Amino acid sequence: MIGMKRMRSNAMPATRNADDTPDWRGAILADPSRVLADGELMIALLGVRHDGNIADLNAAARARLQSEITLLKAANEDLQDMLRGNLAAQASAHAAVMGLMDEPTLAALDRRLAGHTATTLGLEAVRVCLEGITALPRAIAILPAAPGLKAAMLGEASERLGAPDPRLSGPIYGVQASRVASEAVIALEGRGFSGVLCLGSARRDAFRPSDAADLAHFLARILERRLEALLPR
Amino acid sequence: MIGMKRMRSNAMPATRNADDTPDWRGAILADPSRVLADGELMIALLGVRHDGNIADLNAAARARLQSEITLLKAANEDLQDMLRGNLAAQASAHAAVMGLMDEPTLAALDRRLAGHTATTLGLEAVRVCLEGITALPRAIAILPAAPGLKAAMLGEASERLGAPDPRLSGPIYGVQASRVASEAVIALEGRGFSGVLCLGSARRDAFRPSDAADLAHFLARILERRLEALLPR
Repeated sequence: MIGMKRMRSNAMPATRNADDTPDWRGAILADPSRVLADGELMIALLGVRHDGNIADLNAAARARLQSEITLLKAANEDLQDMLRGNLAAQASAHAAVMGLMDEPTLAALDRRLAGHTATTLGLEAVRVCLEGITALPRAIAILPAAPGLKAAMLGEASERLGAPDPRLSGPIYGVQASRVASEAVIALEGRGFSGVLCLGSARRDAFRPSDAADLAHFLARILERRLEALLPR
Repeated sequence: MIGMKRMRSNAMPATRNADDTPDWRGAILADPSRVLADGELMIALLGVRHDGNIADLNAAARARLQSEITLLKAANEDLQDMLRGNLAAQASAHAAVMGLMDEPTLAALDRRLAGHTATTLGLEAVRVCLEGITALPRAIAILPAAPGLKAAMLGEASERLGAPDPRLSGPIYGVQASRVASEAVIALEGRGFSGVLCLGSARRDAFRPSDAADLAHFLARILERRLEALLPR
């Protein structure tokens, strides 16, 4: 999948730096009762008030540590999934780009986008909509679009990720429209043309508004160069 | 840097407070794990109330859990560093690729490789060695090489990462050779030419034999397409 997941900035609790021992450690060590007698602190630390016996406190302390371990393990697995997912997305995007580089004609580029590119990226459909340009008579992927389509879909933005626009899904994806559950729309702008690149996925969560679109943008920039080389002047 | 590496994040500055200020309560409330993961503090708070075995057993149980938390936090930081580093490496590789795509002549491609590409990738020097081809009279980056150079540097392999070959470093990197502490050598093979792409870094750990070279290979594949288009037939 070409969409890259952003790393959550608050994936983990802040870590204590070993080099930097806070002065308040000394205060607690000198007089633990300052903490033990502080109801708010004891709730924060152990989730209990210090009115029970010491065995309860020890059990509560272990439970807190155990729950922190559970959270850290889950965060660790999420990070590993993201790392693997990003590398897989990068590899498939690069394979798609190399495929686009090699096509010698616009008709071949059209077939490549509709077939190899979509398959390589794990997508239901790939469409290039060029405003006011009918580049090919029987195109599958490189379609003519009404002037203003880009502004209607994106406004001033360079991308939009999320659920497909129901009014435009039919004209863009044709018979595949009903199977597109999420899409990434990226602005295209080159010498002599303007339009959008539409990446349609059958997976609802393939493109979410919060996802990063770096690879989709890179694909769009490469595609602009190929269209500039292959579109008739 | 094009090699996939770990990037060190800046540790959060910790607040330092005098013993008698109440601000450390805020620090504990904000991050109770600073106390929970601190063995000495936990013994002071919970262990000292009991004499003998119960306290020791409880302290030992907490110590085990705390050391597991320390390991998990270190592993998570490494993963986050890798994730950030991979995305940064990908972004710089893509910027370098886009720069190569736009050059209209071989002389411009030569200057681009020696300047923008090297800078964008954080490298000391970028060289393209073409066996038996003197493509440009006063080239900086695209150099003629003896037939057999690729086989001498790589054998049957498609890549080699690590310390530069001292016999070849001078001819390849010229006056910059002394500053190249590690390199990635990638096989180049195109219509009408054969050679190597040499990425030289001033950092000893920039390219290690165990590193992944996916981005360097992608750059090499793009470069092959550009050389095919721009080399005189």
